Amino acid sequence: MIGRLNHVAIAVSDLKAGVATYAGVLGAKVSDPQDEPDHGVRVVFVELPNTKIELLEPLGENSPIAKFLEKNPAGGIHHVCYEVDDIIAARDKLKAEGARVLGDGEPKIGAHGKPVVFLHPKDFCGTLTELEQV
Amino acid sequence: MIGRLNHVAIAVSDLKAGVATYAGVLGAKVSDPQDEPDHGVRVVFVELPNTKIELLEPLGENSPIAKFLEKNPAGGIHHVCYEVDDIIAARDKLKAEGARVLGDGEPKIGAHGKPVVFLHPKDFCGTLTELEQV
Repeated sequence: MIGRLNHVAIAVSDLKAGVATYAGVLGAKVSDPQDEPDHGVRVVFVELPNTKIELLEPLGENSPIAKFLEKNPAGGIHHVCYEVDDIIAARDKLKAEGARVLGDGEPKIGAHGKPVVFLHPKDFCGTLTELEQV
Repeated sequence: MIGRLNHVAIAVSDLKAGVATYAGVLGAKVSDPQDEPDHGVRVVFVELPNTKIELLEPLGENSPIAKFLEKNPAGGIHHVCYEVDDIIAARDKLKAEGARVLGDGEPKIGAHGKPVVFLHPKDFCGTLTELEQV
């Protein structure tokens, strides 16, 4: 069912410092920052030859990554995102297997403008897991 | 400097359950388990079209992932691994930038039989980061 690894998301409290690490120290190609107010994050994309790393900084009140950064002030890997062809079919299969889909279970439009669901970490190897329809 | 994302490593306390999640629930192609006694892990490879996920279970005494699993009993993302062309040049550049290389700073032969170094999470967005020469 799952296809490509779309991205690994790393939450940071200081996006400029994260960019300095990835662009400066690690020598990767990093995009300009983008505000995603609907998702409560400011993001840059680290463009690797086969996938991307997204560095996320909290934006605004109630950012979904604020609590994670309280627990992990140095930052850390927040989630992984796998691509699927059909988000509804994927969601229905997962629910039939007893896996928990977060929120109301309905796909939302994610930060890339495509339908996504997030899956409960406890059901996926302790890893917050996003599925994105591509 | 960094190239492809070679893998994302997810530590689990029960590899069979991890395989059931990735092969069964998520429908991915998963290899047979391999014991890596020199690295203190038993591993399966989740083969995605563009990269791989490695599920790691502790093997033997003093597994390097035992402490992580004590803190994260449900499992979790343990590290990411980026490819580099020249591990010595990469290590020297990172040290010149003030980044900390774990251990004695000398590349070791990693689980894929290739030279690797691990970088201090505090210097890399709170993320344990492996570089592998390919």
